[in-house]
Amino acid sequence: MTGEFETIRELFAPLAHPEWGRGLLDDVAVVPSRPGYDLILTKDALVEGVHFLPDDPLDTVAQKLLRVNLSDLAAKGAEPFGYLLASGWSPRCGWAEREEFVLGLARDQATYGVMLLGGDTVATPGPATFSVTMMGWTPRDAVVGRNGARAGDMVFVTGHVGDGRLGLMAAQGRLNLEPERLDALIEHYRRPTPQSAFAPVIRELATASVDVSDGLIADIGHIATASGVRIDLDLEQTPTSLAGRAWLDKRTDVQDALLQLATGGDDYELAFTVRPEDEARLRRLAEQALVRVTALGQVSEGSGVTVRHLGVPVSVQTPGWTHG
Amino acid sequence: MTGEFETIRELFAPLAHPEWGRGLLDDVAVVPSRPGYDLILTKDALVEGVHFLPDDPLDTVAQKLLRVNLSDLAAKGAEPFGYLLASGWSPRCGWAEREEFVLGLARDQATYGVMLLGGDTVATPGPATFSVTMMGWTPRDAVVGRNGARAGDMVFVTGHVGDGRLGLMAAQGRLNLEPERLDALIEHYRRPTPQSAFAPVIRELATASVDVSDGLIADIGHIATASGVRIDLDLEQTPTSLAGRAWLDKRTDVQDALLQLATGGDDYELAFTVRPEDEARLRRLAEQALVRVTALGQVSEGSGVTVRHLGVPVSVQTPGWTHG
Repeated sequence: MTGEFETIRELFAPLAHPEWGRGLLDDVAVVPSRPGYDLILTKDALVEGVHFLPDDPLDTVAQKLLRVNLSDLAAKGAEPFGYLLASGWSPRCGWAEREEFVLGLARDQATYGVMLLGGDTVATPGPATFSVTMMGWTPRDAVVGRNGARAGDMVFVTGHVGDGRLGLMAAQGRLNLEPERLDALIEHYRRPTPQSAFAPVIRELATASVDVSDGLIADIGHIATASGVRIDLDLEQTPTSLAGRAWLDKRTDVQDALLQLATGGDDYELAFTVRPEDEARLRRLAEQALVRVTALGQVSEGSGVTVRHLGVPVSVQTPGWTHG
Repeated sequence: MTGEFETIRELFAPLAHPEWGRGLLDDVAVVPSRPGYDLILTKDALVEGVHFLPDDPLDTVAQKLLRVNLSDLAAKGAEPFGYLLASGWSPRCGWAEREEFVLGLARDQATYGVMLLGGDTVATPGPATFSVTMMGWTPRDAVVGRNGARAGDMVFVTGHVGDGRLGLMAAQGRLNLEPERLDALIEHYRRPTPQSAFAPVIRELATASVDVSDGLIADIGHIATASGVRIDLDLEQTPTSLAGRAWLDKRTDVQDALLQLATGGDDYELAFTVRPEDEARLRRLAEQALVRVTALGQVSEGSGVTVRHLGVPVSVQTPGWTHG
């Protein structure tokens, strides 16, 4: 029993928004207007073998799918409420695998306060392929873009940088670290944690914001380009996890190792700019939210991103990478 | 040059909504609330080899992708305004193929008044896979569901039924008809025409409505189930195109042939119910819109769909089909 109608009725319908999802029986979702608010939409796709590994458990694939989209909304200061899902099931996705996938969705729906609104489910002879359109609200005209950074602003990043790249290496068995560090990295690769709870802080204080998906340096480069400013980054400030530090400790070329972390991507942290007079409030709100924030750069007149290590400029060949 | 960043910047950005799409540079789209209106969303995916053929020109694939989604909105009486697109490019999708795909999008954006709002573009080692989230508006609480049909209502369908199935057979070279009939059917398979201009009529007059994607009988069955009514269909009323009639003329078992047309799917016509007192106005509005409408059934108390041919009940094994 892996028909698409059964999948919708038995597995997806229980996840649906009770009103707006219309029982997943009407081909459409209906979202009433919310006067005074803007609707924020983002859409990310994951392909087996490209964005997740063929042996990743499907509940974690479902969670990663929601989380990479939730991360985009968090970076814009938006509060998520629902999503549409297109599932392209590969031949390996039998009923048990679909149940496992839906279990992951249900878990994250509870964690992040979102509900399924609709979508499509099809079989594909190729790799499993999923795409989500995630939706959220911001108060009118309050969305945080990439283009608001101004000379004098400080650059911050939440959490740790580099676990995305290290996590992929760990999941592929290409990393030599203690088992608990490897486990933590694999967990991060499979199930990154979006900074959704930090969205209100971003909305209040950030002048520009992105999530770190392409790589810290590349994503901060997006802010510099969109804002028409220059950003100087201090590589030695790159915040690392316990696992990241354990990996760094084994490197002989620390600068090269830090560059690998800062260009790795898939971190799903938030990189953002803040006016210096807002630094104290940012740090207070971050402490209340139990989110680590690290200052690692400055905005000035000019263009592009300059990376320094201990004050010395570093040449960056590839600021980030793309799955494409 | 087939990187995803270049694809976004060179090919997709010119299609973007000038404000709400944010130049496709911000990971999100921002749609202001429209007080007094509901947002209607639908999401359909197409997979190469499943929903379109590997040798279908990519401009027609792009148009089919938009049109199957536009058809869902038309059935709900919604006016489309924009869409998000996830493109999973297979290895055959080089730059020229992507340009061709985008040409198809541009053509239909002009025809149907929609603009690109955002999305994702990735490479896939498998078959090309696309999904669209299409958005439209209806005046508040005016969306037409599947569940409003009442005993006494008449059942109508727009246009012709069966060209979806015949078109697939023609595209696969499995049909023996005159060349111009084959061409028309292949064109319909590749590039169905959604009844978008009929959406205001649906909104004004239909008590329930679906688009014919699974098959006429199956889709009318969805209305019967959701509305808790019985629907009797008169198979001989099934409206057919010139090509459909040419095909029918060669069949010895006309009843079986009509059943094939009425269970074929992929027609993207609208099947809907109307109160008998609204029939005259429906026919007048349809004539003004140059849309053929055919009465082919009645709603009564009870449940399920009964198919009759020249007054005699017909047993239907499989009311529709699914791509799986």
